[in-house]
Amino acid sequence: MLTQAQVDSARRRAADMLAAAGIVLTDAERASIEVADLGLGELERTGLELITYVNTDRYCAKELVLFAGQTCPEHLHPAVAGTPGKMETFRCRWGRVWLYVPGRPVSALKARVPVGSEDYYTVFHQIELNPGDQYTIPPDTPHWFQAGSEGAIVSEFSSTSRDESDLFTDPRIRRAPEVGEA
Amino acid sequence: MLTQAQVDSARRRAADMLAAAGIVLTDAERASIEVADLGLGELERTGLELITYVNTDRYCAKELVLFAGQTCPEHLHPAVAGTPGKMETFRCRWGRVWLYVPGRPVSALKARVPVGSEDYYTVFHQIELNPGDQYTIPPDTPHWFQAGSEGAIVSEFSSTSRDESDLFTDPRIRRAPEVGEA
Repeated sequence: MLTQAQVDSARRRAADMLAAAGIVLTDAERASIEVADLGLGELERTGLELITYVNTDRYCAKELVLFAGQTCPEHLHPAVAGTPGKMETFRCRWGRVWLYVPGRPVSALKARVPVGSEDYYTVFHQIELNPGDQYTIPPDTPHWFQAGSEGAIVSEFSSTSRDESDLFTDPRIRRAPEVGEA
Repeated sequence: MLTQAQVDSARRRAADMLAAAGIVLTDAERASIEVADLGLGELERTGLELITYVNTDRYCAKELVLFAGQTCPEHLHPAVAGTPGKMETFRCRWGRVWLYVPGRPVSALKARVPVGSEDYYTVFHQIELNPGDQYTIPPDTPHWFQAGSEGAIVSEFSSTSRDESDLFTDPRIRRAPEVGEA
């Protein structure tokens, strides 16, 4: 569980990275950047920071921020209530990100699977995204991604986002944030 | 009808504006920026430049570029084949844009209705978008927008885009581009 001070600090770092990349947020957006440690208590290694610009019943757009080497762990977006699972396009805006999906695995992974979580990473087809590169992930497809040594900013364009339905490979993960008192 | 030289020039200017705003395109994207003069032959005044990042049967994302004072003329997105009309969110990334939708008209318009086209502008509720500001336009809603004195860059997040179905108030407008030989 993150402390409020840890959340504030991560929010400031993410806001600074967005500003440095020329991405303008309103004050209200800066103050509400979501810091997702996913319940593992190792935010620097596993988690992400994000701002949701819009999420309607038809489409969604977010900005994702990853610190250096930070990993969004393996998950997929299943069908919900008869609606196909979320389809999403990742467009790298700044930095570098390695994205992993099902398919022929690479022989030498550029990302490092988070230590202690090796059992929960199962897809290793590697896609490198540099600024201007993008990739579309079909519904129901396991994927995970990790930022390079400078971190990364990724625009996510997608169908409706229903984060609470995401299925993570790692059963220890909790998508909803928990923040402590300290 | 634009000449190829005019298209190339507008493309370069739009690419330069995007680069100055820190928005990275691939070479292929830069070469394929759409220059939409909408058939009126007055691109500086009426038209826009755009790049479509992705357009699936579920969502769409584009970057719109407007030169200083350039106007995207009044239009709406109707229902198509039983699917509700396009819903879109405009997020200003750089510069300034005035957006007009139905509602209480402003007494003093900040934009200037393109001379000679006054008959084809009918909604005057004004929304000013500066970097970080955004506004969502429901389906089937007439709207038009004009850049301020430095131009503007606007991210458009939306449901599926079917440009060929757009209904423009001005019957002279043709959405599909025509490019001449010269």
